[in-house]
Amino acid sequence: MELNEALAQLAGLQKKLYAYDTARGALTLDAATVAPKGTAEGRGIVLGVLAGEEHRLFASSETGELLDLLWDRKDQLDQLHRRQVEELRRSYVQRKRIPAQEYMEYTQLVNQAEDLWLRAKEHSDFQLFRPALERLVAFSIKFAGYYDPAKAPYDALLGEYERGVDMAYLDGFFAALRERLVPLIRAIGEKEPPDDAFLHRHYPVEAQRRFSDYLMEVLELDRSHCAIGETEHPFTENFNNKDVRITTHYYEDDLASSMYSVIHEGGHAKYELNVADEVQYTCLAGGSSMGVHESQSRFYENLIGRSLPFIQAIFPQMREFFPEQLADVTAEQFYRAVNRVRPSLIRIDADELTYCLHVMVRYEIEKQLIGGTLEVKDIPETWNRLYKEYLGVEVPDDRQGCLQDSHWAGGSFGYFPSYALGSAYGAQMLKNMEGEMDVWGPVSRGDLSPVSAWLKDKVHRFGCLLEPAQVVDNACGKFDPAVFAGYLEKKYTELYDL
Amino acid sequence: MELNEALAQLAGLQKKLYAYDTARGALTLDAATVAPKGTAEGRGIVLGVLAGEEHRLFASSETGELLDLLWDRKDQLDQLHRRQVEELRRSYVQRKRIPAQEYMEYTQLVNQAEDLWLRAKEHSDFQLFRPALERLVAFSIKFAGYYDPAKAPYDALLGEYERGVDMAYLDGFFAALRERLVPLIRAIGEKEPPDDAFLHRHYPVEAQRRFSDYLMEVLELDRSHCAIGETEHPFTENFNNKDVRITTHYYEDDLASSMYSVIHEGGHAKYELNVADEVQYTCLAGGSSMGVHESQSRFYENLIGRSLPFIQAIFPQMREFFPEQLADVTAEQFYRAVNRVRPSLIRIDADELTYCLHVMVRYEIEKQLIGGTLEVKDIPETWNRLYKEYLGVEVPDDRQGCLQDSHWAGGSFGYFPSYALGSAYGAQMLKNMEGEMDVWGPVSRGDLSPVSAWLKDKVHRFGCLLEPAQVVDNACGKFDPAVFAGYLEKKYTELYDL
Repeated sequence: MELNEALAQLAGLQKKLYAYDTARGALTLDAATVAPKGTAEGRGIVLGVLAGEEHRLFASSETGELLDLLWDRKDQLDQLHRRQVEELRRSYVQRKRIPAQEYMEYTQLVNQAEDLWLRAKEHSDFQLFRPALERLVAFSIKFAGYYDPAKAPYDALLGEYERGVDMAYLDGFFAALRERLVPLIRAIGEKEPPDDAFLHRHYPVEAQRRFSDYLMEVLELDRSHCAIGETEHPFTENFNNKDVRITTHYYEDDLASSMYSVIHEGGHAKYELNVADEVQYTCLAGGSSMGVHESQSRFYENLIGRSLPFIQAIFPQMREFFPEQLADVTAEQFYRAVNRVRPSLIRIDADELTYCLHVMVRYEIEKQLIGGTLEVKDIPETWNRLYKEYLGVEVPDDRQGCLQDSHWAGGSFGYFPSYALGSAYGAQMLKNMEGEMDVWGPVSRGDLSPVSAWLKDKVHRFGCLLEPAQVVDNACGKFDPAVFAGYLEKKYTELYDL
Repeated sequence: MELNEALAQLAGLQKKLYAYDTARGALTLDAATVAPKGTAEGRGIVLGVLAGEEHRLFASSETGELLDLLWDRKDQLDQLHRRQVEELRRSYVQRKRIPAQEYMEYTQLVNQAEDLWLRAKEHSDFQLFRPALERLVAFSIKFAGYYDPAKAPYDALLGEYERGVDMAYLDGFFAALRERLVPLIRAIGEKEPPDDAFLHRHYPVEAQRRFSDYLMEVLELDRSHCAIGETEHPFTENFNNKDVRITTHYYEDDLASSMYSVIHEGGHAKYELNVADEVQYTCLAGGSSMGVHESQSRFYENLIGRSLPFIQAIFPQMREFFPEQLADVTAEQFYRAVNRVRPSLIRIDADELTYCLHVMVRYEIEKQLIGGTLEVKDIPETWNRLYKEYLGVEVPDDRQGCLQDSHWAGGSFGYFPSYALGSAYGAQMLKNMEGEMDVWGPVSRGDLSPVSAWLKDKVHRFGCLLEPAQVVDNACGKFDPAVFAGYLEKKYTELYDL
């Protein structure tokens, strides 16, 4: 086969994979946003078929031969095509090991599990979700063996979300953080907490919706390419760099919850919308890794969104959306309230400092679950014990405990550590950014464009053209978790006058 | 191959076809409801790939061999499987003639065209839509040759929407209607029209949304299987008998527009939700033909929804949704207002009587377009001339003229006559129903369940298990358009005291 023809086939293959992935995404988005409750059955059939068809296509010997042929001529390929072949070969080898039937069953299971999880959460009834979760864990252990049979199962899963990261690495990372965060949290616990009661006044959903529109404007999200919807659990669905959807969840007694969900998911959306055109509809489209993705969402959410200059910039507008609720509140008080450190139950509403402890609970449980030393039936008890141990809080029910997150229902085991890694990457990016330009002047005027331009240049535009570690190098220099710990120490020492 | 194995393959094939169709539907629904404007490109790629994959699967020689094998043993098949094989063979022969590349191009074109049509309508600029429409017409003429090479192209297209119907039949049908409706409309024109100004008071969208929820309740649409969304042009998307979506469009200065859209689309939804389980995920799922489908939507919209007993039943509730706007209005006045006969511009807002003239305009244009005697560029002029001739109205712009409907943008030429046929089927069903049971007693108490049960029994449950003509026979007896004309004459003679 001529090289040109092989490259045309490569592009065709990737467009097909893109199409299957997007169809799946559209159905999932629909399920989470507007689909009526009793519609899981048909959707399950469709998702199962699409997964089977995609698998049949991708795991075929024709695909293997095409990739081999191109790899043999890799010296003749430009960087774009070489990286495509490299990534596809990597996935191909893994996928080839998964029997088509198993892959379809797994896809159908995930569809059912998400439905069951929603209902279990609604009724705070873990037993409703347990059988599905047991099957998901069994599948994940099996799949881990397909991904990388040489590794311990949880290491193999972790590597799928953040290449190069394993338990040995994370044990060290979390230990280093814990060592510096635990005394900090303890010292803060002895201080008078700032008042945050005004965050829990009545904030009507309609006004919050308008506020979300405003926040998306501040983030410079182009609404002709980025929509916002409402779901039980906020998430971002990226179809391509001209079509990204974010979602949020409004609580009328909690202004900060949706506000920071919008900024967080908006950060994911910024990333996706900035990926270069040249990698669209290929395996290199989309963010580089989950850790890098979370570094961007948490950058906007915390490093910018929970900073004093940002809050001062948007506060006058905020008071127009909520004139009565915020009549007696200053920007400074708002800043203190949304940075109040309080060991709590819900990860996505946690402050920046205790957040990592929420992640550590999940990391410990996943490590044992996938390692085979914890049974699904014992998750609630273990969860509650670890929350008591790490955060000092009593979990009153599973809705606010082990049923709060959608990740496991979606089959994602090994994702959670990405949040902590991402936070740490982000802090180091900020440090570099501050060394190169004036970050806070523009932010204090509500202008995020210099920050976004820097992130686009160092992170976003590459998509997966660079390996995750290269992106981190590019934007952080040599990664050092101590920078993150230092950032937190400085911020909270000032805030709490330690 | 054993018969059992062949039947298992048949079921598998139909599930795959169902999956491709549903994925396409989910993307189309998303595009029309929540997708941001600038997202057509990626969706076009996906729809193109899915169409190509589906085509490759369905038009393969393996499919042909399987269907032949089963057809050879048709005497051993039960009715369900025999009908499946019969319908699939019919489609297979047609599809086999369409080259995969053309099919993909066509799918991508439709996606682009819908986007262009929306923009063209928004700006009332036919030129924006013209090039796409020219390509759509060319494709349709070509496809007509694939569907049935022995027929004139427009006859072949008509047959796809309503098997057995062609221009000769419709010319007679429309002439018969015209003969009786034109004098009726003329006589009404000489009478004092009822007041309908109150329909155009200010009706806030939020209140209209709640009113839609109420109407869906009256229609007994189970909200766990039927959702409502908002689109430029109302439609129904049916995924299966447990997952149907309807849409509407709210105008704050027009209460009747969305009200009758909801009842109309609700009628389509009733049909789909009542189709038997045994035909789900097969080619026999869904309504029997477009004409039969429209008979159901227009049954609920007009025969029930625009009847005095129905309006009297729901009026007290309506006044709770719109207390100020309807304070000085009686049920009887409302009934007269929504049945006001007024030759007008917009088909979906037309009264029951002049509605057929709107359809005839489109029929004439399609006949000439697909027959090759009218060029796309001349559509606006012809449209405006025919509206003047048939309805006596001046079309002020293309937004309210030839750009008002989405059908052509979706590649549907030959669909419009179904609306008129459906109306006529419905009138005859009502006559039969009245002969068998008390229709108006329950309706006057707001109870539609006896009507719905009758329609379910005679029409809905079969899906495509019966041929369209059999369904019509089943519910109407021998079809006779004079029944429809008689129904209209009686209703409007009373209303206008002729």
